[in-house]
Amino acid sequence: MRTQSVEYRHGDAVLEGFLAVPATDGERRPGILVSHAWGGRDDFVVEKAKALAELGYAAFALDVYGKGVRGSGPEQNQKLMMPFLQDRALLRDRLKSGMDCFAAQPGVDGSQIAIMGYCFGGLCALDLARSGAAIKGAVSFHGLFIPPALPKQAVKARVLALHGYDDPMVPPQQVLDFATEMNESKVDWQMHAYGGVLHAFTVPEANDLSLGALYNARAARRSWQAMMDFFEEIFD
Amino acid sequence: MRTQSVEYRHGDAVLEGFLAVPATDGERRPGILVSHAWGGRDDFVVEKAKALAELGYAAFALDVYGKGVRGSGPEQNQKLMMPFLQDRALLRDRLKSGMDCFAAQPGVDGSQIAIMGYCFGGLCALDLARSGAAIKGAVSFHGLFIPPALPKQAVKARVLALHGYDDPMVPPQQVLDFATEMNESKVDWQMHAYGGVLHAFTVPEANDLSLGALYNARAARRSWQAMMDFFEEIFD
Repeated sequence: MRTQSVEYRHGDAVLEGFLAVPATDGERRPGILVSHAWGGRDDFVVEKAKALAELGYAAFALDVYGKGVRGSGPEQNQKLMMPFLQDRALLRDRLKSGMDCFAAQPGVDGSQIAIMGYCFGGLCALDLARSGAAIKGAVSFHGLFIPPALPKQAVKARVLALHGYDDPMVPPQQVLDFATEMNESKVDWQMHAYGGVLHAFTVPEANDLSLGALYNARAARRSWQAMMDFFEEIFD
Repeated sequence: MRTQSVEYRHGDAVLEGFLAVPATDGERRPGILVSHAWGGRDDFVVEKAKALAELGYAAFALDVYGKGVRGSGPEQNQKLMMPFLQDRALLRDRLKSGMDCFAAQPGVDGSQIAIMGYCFGGLCALDLARSGAAIKGAVSFHGLFIPPALPKQAVKARVLALHGYDDPMVPPQQVLDFATEMNESKVDWQMHAYGGVLHAFTVPEANDLSLGALYNARAARRSWQAMMDFFEEIFD
């Protein structure tokens, strides 16, 4: 496996992604963008990028916040995330800058890109799909569903939402609203809802019931398997 | 593969299941009950039992209605199904008779049984789980969710519901009610909802919009894959 940090820009912002590509003969692989949670581009997404490269994909942990910018706790994470929740056009364009950087990397088949992400990064995955970007798929792990107030685009991606049914950040009404939004946009979408499962279920350290966040090993395994099946399906 | 028809009884009713077991050295395999839709124990479930045997499981297409009893169309199917929807205790006990017959067959590991089923058979799969039967898992393909008015039992099975989100027989409110029921019963449950997908999505001949039934090849593939992943998970 070849890994490296990759600096890229969006307007004045300097960002730093993490690239992981299977060590092969220059073959170009389908590429998966990995979108970080509210804490920024941390080791968690770096490890996910490596795990995807071990599955044979090119992978890129993109960076929304800026080179080296990480939150150190819920309060700071929230402060970092809010500007992007409040300006979804900015978020969309920043995600696209990461996609463009990734698609141009050696070893990446830029015509076969998908995105996956966690929590805030799940919303990022959905927002890139909603933008009409030329991607094959978007996978949200315990992501937020609230749609942007932006003009509707024709969605090219297939969508897979992996959802803890008891996630207090995404109550049942939001699940129904999301289904309605996806149907209205004629998206090929799926939702896998896991009963008795809270927010952040893939994160081994998640254990904060005031946030409704709790690791669930079984849901973590199931969701990873579902993602693998989905990637098997969507790429040519 | 070894296949045979197996006659069994429940009270005065004579039933006929179809057994398919991998052709091996007498090894006992985890066993999957296959529960038919409203038309009775037809070729569709026989083929599913064979497909499961090809995956290495013992499989048994059980019979709710009686030996040779098949419906020839929606009206007759409905007439055959109604007595069992109206007497869920009878249905439960009849399902258990199929389970007991299956568990006693050579080549079947009676301590590792699961059930899957289609439409009415999805409800059967859920009802066997709800009964507290000693099964490892229950998979419903485009099944009905309405719970029986029977005393609650401790559910031992893990539950996987594979659902066409636009199935008019199971509107969103029933999805929410099902989630509430499963959570209250502390079941390990999942639901995979497929957007834009109607009732009977696994049935290649399904094409009756007055019933809201329509084949969907992609949802059929996805749901079969999800079932395979689930069976990989639940057996020791």
